Amino acid sequence: MIPYGSLVLYAFPDGKKRVRRLEEGADWHTNDGRVSALEAHGADFGGVIRTSLNVPVRLLEAGLMDRLMGLKRQTQIIYPKDIAYICMRLGAGPGRTIGEAGCGSGGLTAALSWFCGPTGRVVSHESREEFARLARRNLEWAGVGANVEIHVKDISGGMELKNADAVFLDMREPWLCLGPALAAARRGASFGFLLPTVNQVNQLLLALEKGPFAEIEIVEILLRRWKPVPDRLRPEDRMSAHTGFLIFARQQEKSEEFDHWLPRGTRERKRDAAKEARMEENNGSSTL
Amino acid sequence: MIPYGSLVLYAFPDGKKRVRRLEEGADWHTNDGRVSALEAHGADFGGVIRTSLNVPVRLLEAGLMDRLMGLKRQTQIIYPKDIAYICMRLGAGPGRTIGEAGCGSGGLTAALSWFCGPTGRVVSHESREEFARLARRNLEWAGVGANVEIHVKDISGGMELKNADAVFLDMREPWLCLGPALAAARRGASFGFLLPTVNQVNQLLLALEKGPFAEIEIVEILLRRWKPVPDRLRPEDRMSAHTGFLIFARQQEKSEEFDHWLPRGTRERKRDAAKEARMEENNGSSTL
Amino acid sequence: MIPYGSLVLYAFPDGKKRVRRLEEGADWHTNDGRVSALEAHGADFGGVIRTSLNVPVRLLEAGLMDRLMGLKRQTQIIYPKDIAYICMRLGAGPGRTIGEAGCGSGGLTAALSWFCGPTGRVVSHESREEFARLARRNLEWAGVGANVEIHVKDISGGMELKNADAVFLDMREPWLCLGPALAAARRGASFGFLLPTVNQVNQLLLALEKGPFAEIEIVEILLRRWKPVPDRLRPEDRMSAHTGFLIFARQQEKSEEFDHWLPRGTRERKRDAAKEARMEENNGSSTL
Amino acid sequence: MIPYGSLVLYAFPDGKKRVRRLEEGADWHTNDGRVSALEAHGADFGGVIRTSLNVPVRLLEAGLMDRLMGLKRQTQIIYPKDIAYICMRLGAGPGRTIGEAGCGSGGLTAALSWFCGPTGRVVSHESREEFARLARRNLEWAGVGANVEIHVKDISGGMELKNADAVFLDMREPWLCLGPALAAARRGASFGFLLPTVNQVNQLLLALEKGPFAEIEIVEILLRRWKPVPDRLRPEDRMSAHTGFLIFARQQEKSEEFDHWLPRGTRERKRDAAKEARMEENNGSSTL
Repeated sequence: MIPYGSLVLYAFPDGKKRVRRLEEGADWHTNDGRVSALEAHGADFGGVIRTSLNVPVRLLEAGLMDRLMGLKRQTQIIYPKDIAYICMRLGAGPGRTIGEAGCGSGGLTAALSWFCGPTGRVVSHESREEFARLARRNLEWAGVGANVEIHVKDISGGMELKNADAVFLDMREPWLCLGPALAAARRGASFGFLLPTVNQVNQLLLALEKGPFAEIEIVEILLRRWKPVPDRLRPEDRMSAHTGFLIFARQQEKSEEFDHWLPRGTRERKRDAAKEARMEENNGSSTL
Repeated sequence: MIPYGSLVLYAFPDGKKRVRRLEEGADWHTNDGRVSALEAHGADFGGVIRTSLNVPVRLLEAGLMDRLMGLKRQTQIIYPKDIAYICMRLGAGPGRTIGEAGCGSGGLTAALSWFCGPTGRVVSHESREEFARLARRNLEWAGVGANVEIHVKDISGGMELKNADAVFLDMREPWLCLGPALAAARRGASFGFLLPTVNQVNQLLLALEKGPFAEIEIVEILLRRWKPVPDRLRPEDRMSAHTGFLIFARQQEKSEEFDHWLPRGTRERKRDAAKEARMEENNGSSTL
Repeated sequence: MIPYGSLVLYAFPDGKKRVRRLEEGADWHTNDGRVSALEAHGADFGGVIRTSLNVPVRLLEAGLMDRLMGLKRQTQIIYPKDIAYICMRLGAGPGRTIGEAGCGSGGLTAALSWFCGPTGRVVSHESREEFARLARRNLEWAGVGANVEIHVKDISGGMELKNADAVFLDMREPWLCLGPALAAARRGASFGFLLPTVNQVNQLLLALEKGPFAEIEIVEILLRRWKPVPDRLRPEDRMSAHTGFLIFARQQEKSEEFDHWLPRGTRERKRDAAKEARMEENNGSSTL
Repeated sequence: MIPYGSLVLYAFPDGKKRVRRLEEGADWHTNDGRVSALEAHGADFGGVIRTSLNVPVRLLEAGLMDRLMGLKRQTQIIYPKDIAYICMRLGAGPGRTIGEAGCGSGGLTAALSWFCGPTGRVVSHESREEFARLARRNLEWAGVGANVEIHVKDISGGMELKNADAVFLDMREPWLCLGPALAAARRGASFGFLLPTVNQVNQLLLALEKGPFAEIEIVEILLRRWKPVPDRLRPEDRMSAHTGFLIFARQQEKSEEFDHWLPRGTRERKRDAAKEARMEENNGSSTL
């Protein structure tokens, strides 16, 4: 028996998949015929029923990834491959508190909500009301979100939480909001960023190196699927070549020792800049 | 104040990092000098103290990934990039029950334990007692594992759980253990596998296509790091080229409709095999 | 002045590109209007003319890659990224003799012809006459092929050359044709293969390790394009994930020392097989 | 018989390979014993001889790639995967004229020389005399270079050729030398660049979009090797993650139609810049 209220993944023989909540009495009209709610309810997960046009449909419980893939989108979404790495890297999990800015359609928010569970807390911010509404609807549709607050606000004036274990910024110019993000987080917290272009990554790095940040990591994650055909095993023909750059950093106390952990190139650049600054002061005039 | 008992990530200026539990009175003797437990206790996460040789050390709370990287290893480990995708794909999370066979050094076990939390349950199996012991020690060291059982047994005779939401097999010949894995899982459950060679992937696919499995996915995950040097931004020179192939599948009810969801190549091969079988029967003799 | 007879790359503002030979008096009718042969002739490479519908068209000389991309295809083609590596790996160049089997639409043949030039020689074999004809037409269209022979034959009975510097086999079961390929090549020659599936690669390796081959290399080449947009620099969204596996080997003299150069796993497997064979002989019966 | 004067690839059982010219009477003293020139001369390519310490050594003719790998290096080298693509993309081949600036250790120069042959011409420029000398020695060692001129000069004052079919710049700030490169090339010529960082790519794009250039392509080439072990087939563990970005462009006539071929983002940026410029003029003062 599949309980009413379940999120069901319907898989059709042509490869089409849809995630839909099973509601009592609510048959579903598709191009392949009507799917009876009663028959679906009478089946088990993993089972097969037939539409009114006799097309077989397999019923599976929608897992976390099925739900992420089924969200309604009005924005660029974060891909599951990236969501998974972000959640691990930020240490999402039961009892943790995560801040987010730029929740978009709510894909990452849904995953953070899933992993943090009833004892955890996700505090999200979205400056555009329409996206905040969409994200909230998506969370409800996905059966998560009880531990999520969404604030309709631009975080440049501050985030609506304190002592976050981690903060994720998915916005165009995150370097302008490092102050509010730091203010929302506890000491030593983890920070994450998603940026599509290398120019943005560069600008963020310049801001991060002014501190107080350490342990900076930049990664790209590439996922290559293979065709599941035995005896003719080979990768799929095409793949996603780029979704975004993921940047991670840790808050650190400002200190004289700060520069010890900068990458060598950065350290040299800072030394040169300091030397030039001194020369200018001594000259009483700018040499540039 | 960093509480005694915390898992601390010590970051040295030369890039060296160590994860260690901070114990009252237990100074730590390193090549860079002695790290005082009392001074570490008096600092905050994100702060810096100095060793007896005046080397600065930054203290950070060890996150999930730091813990995974710090585990003692006697086996091939699963990489964080793969662990993250596996946990999302299997829907690990609060309240979920996950079965595992082949826990090795316990890397995936630790992450599953973290995400499932006190309301979830991880039931792991390891045929070699030394690895089971190592995994248990690693879980304790990493501050997780309260929700984990480790059974020292070969699962070919059965797994020690029922109704698992998902089952992960990290073993050399998982195709020999599909029966026990299915018996341990609830209907429609998710299954995951990690295999290093394509020959193993091929053999697993041949077993999976006999059913009852559906929604088969094979992926490789590649992670490329970039050097965090602004104004000279570029990827790192080297990367991991291969850790393993990840295979996922869902349990499905056996039915006449089964073949509808097989990849086309597989369907054709089955049809040809059936035709040959019929011809042989008619001939009363094998043609091969 | 662009000479009549030139292969011209016509680039339209919408990104459309076409390679076409410029023939006196032969205007070209496109959806964007008529392109006048006279006006094209009067322009220079790099210049722009307008169609009868006033659409600007830029004229460029078709380079090697433009020609490869412009070939008519009735078969899977080899991608330029792979062609380039093959030509370098086989040492194509002026004065060299290269054998090929399975010329398909003639893409690799065209590049080999280009690099080997008038003092070199390319001897190609294609079992299907329609492909041989297509390849010949493509070579002529691309302005190369004067140094190419195409034989319509299955090479299992032998190749139509001797003392080749290198031989490339692009066929489904190249392991069946290693003998003819070796007979066509000089001592120490280079061999190349293109195979789409790992199962084929495995079968080829099993044949190559029986010898007499050495220096076996298997590679995949991935090409990732970036969008040429300054200040918003990022990779393209999608890329080719798989075209084929390239395998290379060198002919070597058979000798007792042969096994010294086998990969360790292969050597162990051979030793085990030899041991089993001896045991069977001693027992006078099979133990398996 | 291996003729004296041949470039021989010596392959040792432990995987070590060395490329060396076989000279009459010049035995070679290695850690594995003395390799007799007389015995090598008496063998055939593909054959095996033994050192004075009875270690077997296989002899192969050094191919193009073996020679590239064997060059002496004092600079960053261009990888064969990149060299192959560059040579194809620039249309190197018999009879072609290629200009180069920044020949470094001469790796690309050697390949261009090989492909262009006696009827072609490679004109290289290198500002540091020590590198020019090294490149010249490397070309001689590799048995190529008869068609190569190397000029010790910075090309900002001009290149030493006219009407090149293609020009390749391997230097830190190629955007400063586009003028001399254009002056050295014929109309519609191909241009190539190799740059390690995205910041350099960005700066080059800004210069290229000022024209007169078209058909801009940016690529990264990734090569993944597989272990040649049948029945345990899998990729190698590590790979090169980054060597450089390859940028290609074609010279085009300046014209009003120029902007038609710019990428959309670039076109918009130019329009905005033009609008701002007009506004400033109208205001009689700079707003920036």
